Amino acid sequence: MGGTDFRRELGRQLRVDSVRASTAAGSGHPTSSMSSADLMAVLLDGHLTLDYQDPGNPGNDHLIFSKGHASPLYYAVLKAAGSITDEELLTFRTFGSRLEGHPTPLIPPTDVATGSLGQGLPVGVGIALAGKRLDRLPYRVWVLCGDSEMAEGSIWEAFSHAAWDRLDNLTAIIDVNRLGQTRETMLGWDLDAYAARARAFGWHPIIVDGHDVDAIDAAYTEAEATTGKPSVVIARTIKGQGVKAVEDQPGKHGQPIADAAAAIAELGGERHLTVDVAAPAHDGKAHHFDVPGGRMPTWRLGEQVATRLAYGRSLAALGSIRGDVVALDGEVSNSTHAELFAQAHPERYFEMFIAEQQLVAAAVGLQARGWVAFASTFGAFFSRAYDFVRMAAVSRADLRLCGSHAGVSIGEDGPSQMALEDMAAMRAVHGSTVLHPSDANQTARLVAEMADRPGVTYLRTLRGKTEVRTPPDEEVHIGGSRVLRSGDHDDITLVACGATVQEAMEAALALAADGVEARVIDCYSVKPIDAATLSEAAHQTRALITVEDHWPEGGLGDAVLEALAEHPAGTPVHKLAVRDMPTSGTPAELVHAARIDAAAIIEAAGAFRA
Amino acid sequence: MGGTDFRRELGRQLRVDSVRASTAAGSGHPTSSMSSADLMAVLLDGHLTLDYQDPGNPGNDHLIFSKGHASPLYYAVLKAAGSITDEELLTFRTFGSRLEGHPTPLIPPTDVATGSLGQGLPVGVGIALAGKRLDRLPYRVWVLCGDSEMAEGSIWEAFSHAAWDRLDNLTAIIDVNRLGQTRETMLGWDLDAYAARARAFGWHPIIVDGHDVDAIDAAYTEAEATTGKPSVVIARTIKGQGVKAVEDQPGKHGQPIADAAAAIAELGGERHLTVDVAAPAHDGKAHHFDVPGGRMPTWRLGEQVATRLAYGRSLAALGSIRGDVVALDGEVSNSTHAELFAQAHPERYFEMFIAEQQLVAAAVGLQARGWVAFASTFGAFFSRAYDFVRMAAVSRADLRLCGSHAGVSIGEDGPSQMALEDMAAMRAVHGSTVLHPSDANQTARLVAEMADRPGVTYLRTLRGKTEVRTPPDEEVHIGGSRVLRSGDHDDITLVACGATVQEAMEAALALAADGVEARVIDCYSVKPIDAATLSEAAHQTRALITVEDHWPEGGLGDAVLEALAEHPAGTPVHKLAVRDMPTSGTPAELVHAARIDAAAIIEAAGAFRA
Repeated sequence: MGGTDFRRELGRQLRVDSVRASTAAGSGHPTSSMSSADLMAVLLDGHLTLDYQDPGNPGNDHLIFSKGHASPLYYAVLKAAGSITDEELLTFRTFGSRLEGHPTPLIPPTDVATGSLGQGLPVGVGIALAGKRLDRLPYRVWVLCGDSEMAEGSIWEAFSHAAWDRLDNLTAIIDVNRLGQTRETMLGWDLDAYAARARAFGWHPIIVDGHDVDAIDAAYTEAEATTGKPSVVIARTIKGQGVKAVEDQPGKHGQPIADAAAAIAELGGERHLTVDVAAPAHDGKAHHFDVPGGRMPTWRLGEQVATRLAYGRSLAALGSIRGDVVALDGEVSNSTHAELFAQAHPERYFEMFIAEQQLVAAAVGLQARGWVAFASTFGAFFSRAYDFVRMAAVSRADLRLCGSHAGVSIGEDGPSQMALEDMAAMRAVHGSTVLHPSDANQTARLVAEMADRPGVTYLRTLRGKTEVRTPPDEEVHIGGSRVLRSGDHDDITLVACGATVQEAMEAALALAADGVEARVIDCYSVKPIDAATLSEAAHQTRALITVEDHWPEGGLGDAVLEALAEHPAGTPVHKLAVRDMPTSGTPAELVHAARIDAAAIIEAAGAFRA
Repeated sequence: MGGTDFRRELGRQLRVDSVRASTAAGSGHPTSSMSSADLMAVLLDGHLTLDYQDPGNPGNDHLIFSKGHASPLYYAVLKAAGSITDEELLTFRTFGSRLEGHPTPLIPPTDVATGSLGQGLPVGVGIALAGKRLDRLPYRVWVLCGDSEMAEGSIWEAFSHAAWDRLDNLTAIIDVNRLGQTRETMLGWDLDAYAARARAFGWHPIIVDGHDVDAIDAAYTEAEATTGKPSVVIARTIKGQGVKAVEDQPGKHGQPIADAAAAIAELGGERHLTVDVAAPAHDGKAHHFDVPGGRMPTWRLGEQVATRLAYGRSLAALGSIRGDVVALDGEVSNSTHAELFAQAHPERYFEMFIAEQQLVAAAVGLQARGWVAFASTFGAFFSRAYDFVRMAAVSRADLRLCGSHAGVSIGEDGPSQMALEDMAAMRAVHGSTVLHPSDANQTARLVAEMADRPGVTYLRTLRGKTEVRTPPDEEVHIGGSRVLRSGDHDDITLVACGATVQEAMEAALALAADGVEARVIDCYSVKPIDAATLSEAAHQTRALITVEDHWPEGGLGDAVLEALAEHPAGTPVHKLAVRDMPTSGTPAELVHAARIDAAAIIEAAGAFRA
């Protein structure tokens, strides 16, 4: 450790490099970086334990810039730590550089992408949970937050959960520089107000002058010594600190310093100090869970089983087979049936309460440490965490989500509880997989595949029971489909998934009695979709009718259209989907009213008679 | 007012009716209703001012059940207030009934749908803002919250904002019955912890025994007398209160009482009391804003203008023409250019800070009082409020959203700031409209149309400048499109929107020089889309190439495919869209790398040469 003078010098270097990087880029947020520079200088020199030469070391601390727009500072830190060269620093924001406008995992040791405010802290909660309960390693999670992002509700989900789980391995650092993008924040420099909120939420608050390196050192030491609760260092800082032309000035957000050369001179010029950041002393071996093994469940043909129950049983079985599988739920585990995992593997289950943003963020944090996390809630309520799912893709996270209670077929609870836009939203996540099995055996096979699937995978399950139609030994795989009924002279094709598969089969039997032969395809994999099977059907039959318990936009029907777009057979595609706002009623009444039942299919098929 | 005994009796009636309704339905949440019954009995009898016979009276108080699953109680309240009959009460959750599983505006005087937890309070903030700053009426907003939903971050966005705006016309009532769906809440019966959190967030907390009607009466009186800050009544209650078989028992959530007859007997049997709920005394005339009038802006052909700037100028102009137009922004108003409205009409502008859920919820609350609310932030960050947009549709809300910084064309900031899934997500909202103008004149016309458009309307704007190609006097309307280039012998059709229109035009000129004639269609209205123009092009040309600055799923390309699905011309549709995770770079570099630029269009067109 270099002492007071070294830390002050390091802080100035971090400011200078923030100015240089953003000036080189012609954009970026130097003033938001300068307010946090001393906080990072002291963290690097004496508190952070992170082997920058070995970013994958399980014993490493984790440093998350929740205020991702302070990326110039983040990269200046990497330079000071010897992780990147000064030359690379100046590639900031240029095409091909690892140093993007906001940090992403393209540049190690970055765990997750930030830049959508209020996400770094809840993800940090997930990593801290991994440290305490899974890895069982003494690493610490440090999260640098901006004061503007304290207005995000997700921050308070994190405060709430971290205290409840007594995460004393988590330290938040709030850079209270008073100024947001266009004006003063709601609380300005009222540090006591921040402290009162943190204390009320069960954290240990420490107020500090964010430009006094000795005081910062003492604050971190106090945080490290605090047990039984997380700590938050609430630092009074000055935006643009060190350069009079921008210090504490409004209108200086998100732009390079006008006179960079003068600013660098005012800060004492360029420096090229390096810090020997502490490496983990222990051997850094993460805990592994021993498992008894076993087999994935299967069901007999003809059984009536809800796919949500099949999910719970499958996940519990998978947890017995693989010790790296963990599960989280948003306080509806007796509805999603994640409770079956919780009962079987309580050490690997995380109750996240009614806080869907923290639910997904925790899963992102757990997977950043290599755990295979499955998170569940009602499909409708993943919409609450959509920004977190979007950012998980930017984080290159492997995330498994299970949304239950799909569509109008849930019945009486009404539209607020019905997932009707979930397939559209999840399909539009980069690199995602969207699965909607129609029976229990499909569900079990897909849950097993999800564990090895990269990217964001979404499994949509049903509230009500459906008949097991897939033989237990039949192959079911991501990208596949099941042809339930086909012949050489099929007139039309019915494409269904989930609850509408039985409607399609019922319709096909009725149509056959009336002389119309319908092929029936169960597209349990909506993304990727089985384009070959669909294309064949488009060429061999006169029309395709898609049937889904979902709004018409972005779901099964659109996925089918996309599969046929490039090489069209000229075959019409008629989409049956939920077009009016549903109400309450029995599942049968609502499926009928939505015109996605067998009767609606039969009627639609009438238009395509020979 | 009926005094202590009457209120106790009324509370018992509300319990009995909650049991009866859910038993008749065979589902629902009686125990969650019973814990709040006394709180509602006292509110109805002596505190609420709401003319149930005249739900549209502008002077009415507003009562929101943020814990929407307590719908049996909500409907029992309507019966006690004489708003529905006992017969209708027993239609709860049946098909065709106005009494859905969770309250919706189908049954007056319900302002908004609830059932997705944590939304009622932030919407209540919006209505309270309308009361204070727009309507300027002394009505009060009462919001009944569950204790489980206090884990939702959106609740704390509401706490934060309501205190900042000194909304002393807002009272939250937290029903602390300790038990969630599967287990005890994080705070259980620690009422002091709730009070400390509320106080730290600037609210006046009042702790009360939620089954002591006199204490509740005193608490409400204290809330009504509190000025300068919102109040929260934190009530210790017992889930299932009054029926020993379920009182304070786990495992009794979301199900009818097993022995309803015994429960009703234990509660003293059926009653049919009615309450004469106070009606507003004042004349209830809402404030109107006088406006100077004026014209919507126009731009000259060939000017280079960002559509986000056109949005700001158009909205400011619209605010001068119409006094009912109001605007909100999530602390990025100098990026979205909502600042131009704020400068022109400060009384009608609401700064919502970095809290997108509260941003959208406030807009929903304002429109519930008839104000024409436009809410803006980066398009990417509306994903943070997707559940609120979804629920706005269930609320039958008329909501205008403007998302700026569409796609990779923003450049250096990187993927966290790029809206790439927004069109997919917004198209999949029931009854929505999705607009993506390519120039300033289109933007102005569409902003004016948005003001009269029912449902959720989303306008997507660009960071960078685009050339004005639409003549100022040309018709531009929702559902329309612009054919920029066409002839009798076009070979192919290019379909673009927003930033890709100029790429398509550039490609068309280059292709023409090479002997390939390309029709160019600007689909500024993505939903509804101009199916007739697209269908004509599909029949008249050999192929359609769609080009969008968006992921391939759910955006322009899928909207085009849907338009052609039923009556296919057999014409291939090739979708150009962003397929790899973008990085930082200049707009031109990123548009090129994403293969949505003129060069990519020309290359794609090569496959369809005659």
